[in-house]
Amino acid sequence: MQMPTLVESLQETLSMSQVTTNITVRELHSKDESYHAPVTPEVVVYPYNAQDVSEIKQIAKQFSRPVYPFGLGSSLEGLVIPTEDGISIDFSEMNRIIEVKEQDLLVKVQPGVTRTQLNKELKKYGLFFSVDPGADATIGGMAATNASGTSSVRYGIMRDQVRDIEVVLADGSIIHTGNLAAKSSSGYNLNGLFIGSEGTLGSFTEITLEVHGIPEHIVAGRAVFPTIDNAVEAAVSTLHAGVPIARCELVDEPSVKKTNEFSDTDYPVQPTLFLEFHGNEAGLNQDLAFMKEIVKEQGCEEIEFEQDNAARNKLWEARHNLAYAYIHGAPGKKMMTTDVCVPISELAGAIRHARKVVDDSMFEGGIAGHVGDGNYHIILMFDRNSEEEIQAAAKLNEEVVKYALSVGGTCTGEHGVGLGKQKYQAEEHGESLFVMKKIKEAFDPENRLNPFKLVQFKE
Amino acid sequence: MQMPTLVESLQETLSMSQVTTNITVRELHSKDESYHAPVTPEVVVYPYNAQDVSEIKQIAKQFSRPVYPFGLGSSLEGLVIPTEDGISIDFSEMNRIIEVKEQDLLVKVQPGVTRTQLNKELKKYGLFFSVDPGADATIGGMAATNASGTSSVRYGIMRDQVRDIEVVLADGSIIHTGNLAAKSSSGYNLNGLFIGSEGTLGSFTEITLEVHGIPEHIVAGRAVFPTIDNAVEAAVSTLHAGVPIARCELVDEPSVKKTNEFSDTDYPVQPTLFLEFHGNEAGLNQDLAFMKEIVKEQGCEEIEFEQDNAARNKLWEARHNLAYAYIHGAPGKKMMTTDVCVPISELAGAIRHARKVVDDSMFEGGIAGHVGDGNYHIILMFDRNSEEEIQAAAKLNEEVVKYALSVGGTCTGEHGVGLGKQKYQAEEHGESLFVMKKIKEAFDPENRLNPFKLVQFKE
Ligand SMILES: Cc1cc2nc3c(=O)[nH]c(=O)nc-3n(C[C@H](O)[C@H](O)[C@H](O)COP(=O)(O)OP(=O)(O)OC[C@H]3O[C@@H](n4cnc5c(N)ncnc54)[C@H](O)[C@@H]3O)c2cc1C
Ligand SMILES: Cc1cc2nc3c(=O)[nH]c(=O)nc-3n(C[C@H](O)[C@H](O)[C@H](O)COP(=O)(O)OP(=O)(O)OC[C@H]3O[C@@H](n4cnc5c(N)ncnc54)[C@H](O)[C@@H]3O)c2cc1C
Repeated sequence: MQMPTLVESLQETLSMSQVTTNITVRELHSKDESYHAPVTPEVVVYPYNAQDVSEIKQIAKQFSRPVYPFGLGSSLEGLVIPTEDGISIDFSEMNRIIEVKEQDLLVKVQPGVTRTQLNKELKKYGLFFSVDPGADATIGGMAATNASGTSSVRYGIMRDQVRDIEVVLADGSIIHTGNLAAKSSSGYNLNGLFIGSEGTLGSFTEITLEVHGIPEHIVAGRAVFPTIDNAVEAAVSTLHAGVPIARCELVDEPSVKKTNEFSDTDYPVQPTLFLEFHGNEAGLNQDLAFMKEIVKEQGCEEIEFEQDNAARNKLWEARHNLAYAYIHGAPGKKMMTTDVCVPISELAGAIRHARKVVDDSMFEGGIAGHVGDGNYHIILMFDRNSEEEIQAAAKLNEEVVKYALSVGGTCTGEHGVGLGKQKYQAEEHGESLFVMKKIKEAFDPENRLNPFKLVQFKE
Repeated sequence: MQMPTLVESLQETLSMSQVTTNITVRELHSKDESYHAPVTPEVVVYPYNAQDVSEIKQIAKQFSRPVYPFGLGSSLEGLVIPTEDGISIDFSEMNRIIEVKEQDLLVKVQPGVTRTQLNKELKKYGLFFSVDPGADATIGGMAATNASGTSSVRYGIMRDQVRDIEVVLADGSIIHTGNLAAKSSSGYNLNGLFIGSEGTLGSFTEITLEVHGIPEHIVAGRAVFPTIDNAVEAAVSTLHAGVPIARCELVDEPSVKKTNEFSDTDYPVQPTLFLEFHGNEAGLNQDLAFMKEIVKEQGCEEIEFEQDNAARNKLWEARHNLAYAYIHGAPGKKMMTTDVCVPISELAGAIRHARKVVDDSMFEGGIAGHVGDGNYHIILMFDRNSEEEIQAAAKLNEEVVKYALSVGGTCTGEHGVGLGKQKYQAEEHGESLFVMKKIKEAFDPENRLNPFKLVQFKE
């Protein structure tokens, strides 16, 4: 009698329809939305529940194969790309919103739920989930990358929203990382450790998130500045003044131009802050009056307020689609986006530096970002068939990262490390890198969980 | 030639004045502010800097001795109590505020700085640090316990405030856990892991904290209710309504009585919420109007607003001194305080249960707490010489913990595990406890960092 193969074992334990070696499907799981070179997984599996994931891990162990969790594949640093022959675990069939705990401002979801799917459901309860990356990412992927978005300046990043995760560990055992209380000093903080772990410590099969009541009053607008410097200074002054701004996004001149082309808007082609305010009506009016003074000092005469819900939604859709605007405008090319985050006092200097780096390069490139957090991106399109362009893009990224690290910042504010930012881990973390490697070893002694990513390098 | 003893080695490497075996000093380091039985350390050392701490750890290794970090000793679950012959590391000489980074809303401190010392300095810059446990604890101790306080409902707990920690590990190596940017997706989240680790993974020698601008407008007041149920329902409704309340403290009838006696106040002896609102004037007035409706529905006719700064300060001082009021009122007895935290939807039921548990017990006992977070304490005084009272207090605590766990809560919202909450770790964390133990082993393979605490038990 022959021993079953890896694929046969998976099909037997799960079901035929949950396991595929179809080459088109496998190729879809070979890459993310970035420029990193694709690598095709051996097999793609679609678990329905934690038990399935546990079985997959046990079979992976038996066949000495690594596993690569896959949400929507929207990440940007090669996080989902296989590094060796192995199993891509696609969570798209685990896309149920399990329970809206209205009274607790909590929601329990499966990892394959996307952020727009979640918000559509929450709206029925007068609630919303705050983290909104540009892609319609999955909650599992967002938790695994510690994603953030336009409203993180007010509501926090992914790590701030998670109360509990059900995790399947390397050996197939299933744990919970937290509880439903708003705070705890019991045990070690596993929630925080798993968030941002990029599938290298375990797979998430259920996530309990904090949600918020839809604010009584919302006002959105655009503040247009003579120079990008003015726009950044206005953002920094807003933070210093303690205005509880809900969104504060920088979109530079080239990026406004791309947005107008792609999103059919006619925003003035000048450095702009996309703004939003949440609160009660009276408080908000006072905040707005204050904000007008701040932007005036930076040469902005008037904030253009969006007059209705439709215009407001269009504004944020346009912002969310900015990367797609760049991609659309450069067919055949690949996108690269830098992702550093710096202390607020260093933001103006950092963005001046970034602008100079782009101007000195061979690329057009735009700058945009969540400047309220000190996080900004250079977005550029390059030709992956040109060695010269590859080198130039890599050099630009490196210059931006080195600058950020030199002023106390980080090489990635939100996109994660994956393969793309591994080379900066030693410089950024110093001796802590050894500690991180020890954690990886403790959780994954056989190195089968999204191996050779994050803090663990293939020599 | 004779080998130097442990104490001689410490004195040689540090200095004479930094090392003591004086019995009075050692006894001060044998206990915290709770009922747990004291154990005297072998020697007490006072490091001046990270290098000193590193040397201490190396000597501890050489002599196979454990180390016990000590802040102010205000914790409540035996966290600082030696479990074996060893070295108590007192951080009181490391009490410098190193740098106020005004533009970044950050401050870098040594671990021995206390919260009132810090706020006194920050006031000069129009800033404040938000976490305010009842004791004037050290920042190091607060970080190590993941402390929280009256304003955590608005500004978050200790874990939300820390950007970076300098940590001396078991082998004496010195690492940094974070950076100065507002967010990062680089590497594993060491900040979060070290916070709340109770000295079991390393000693903190420098901490960078987020601070806030002192709000433009502050209003404080007391809302007095016919029953404790009404008070709790009012707190829960406030959260559901999305009122951005800055402080929301429950003080029950017996506790108001104790407060009046100790703090020379004359607050009505009824279940009360101590409240505070931060914001701009217009927004705040609208919030207050809303709040008045909410409390009215629960039988509170009027919120008693504190008219000036002095009355406001008195209110919060009285709240902070509540535990001391109990202690003062029962000379010779020991305090026990429960510390569970439950999901908000379970708060009313949980506090009804707590009230019943106290009423059914032999103790007077009061209930108070940070109810905006779902965290409340039963405070009671008992005679540590009476086996009956010890048993009864332990039973009461256990009933409260079991209830909290049964509704998805945690055995400790803020005081930590130490020795007192170890027996609930298995029930609360299930399989995760093994993961936590693995983390402990990875950081402290020779078990010399505050051993046999938190997730590690002496069998
Ligand atoms: C146009 C565009 C705009 C973007 N804007 C932002 C932005 O504003 N902010 C931001 O933070 N990011 C942004 N991103 C990056 C990306 O959307 C985020 O990283 C997102 O969190 C990835 O989610 P995903 O579902 O696509 O995950 P994937 O890309 O599929 O996976 C990401 C990582 O998560 C792991 N993972 C996935 N599911 C699980 C699971 N169930 N358990 C354990 N690990 C899992 C994977 O192994 C991988 O390491 C943008 C990307 C694009 C293309
Ligand atoms: C009257 C009263 C009211 C209280 N109210 C609150 C409250 O509202 N909220 C709350 O959270 N707590 C409260 N507490 C508990 C206590 O104040 C907190 O736990 C506080 O954080 C302890 O700080 P400490 O400086 O006294 O630390 P200690 O008690 O000395 O130590 C606490 C823990 O931290 C470790 N530690 C200390 N310094 C370091 C360091 N540098 N590096 C690594 N580990 C270190 C110790 O080993 C120990 O495990 C209260 C206590 C009292 C007596």
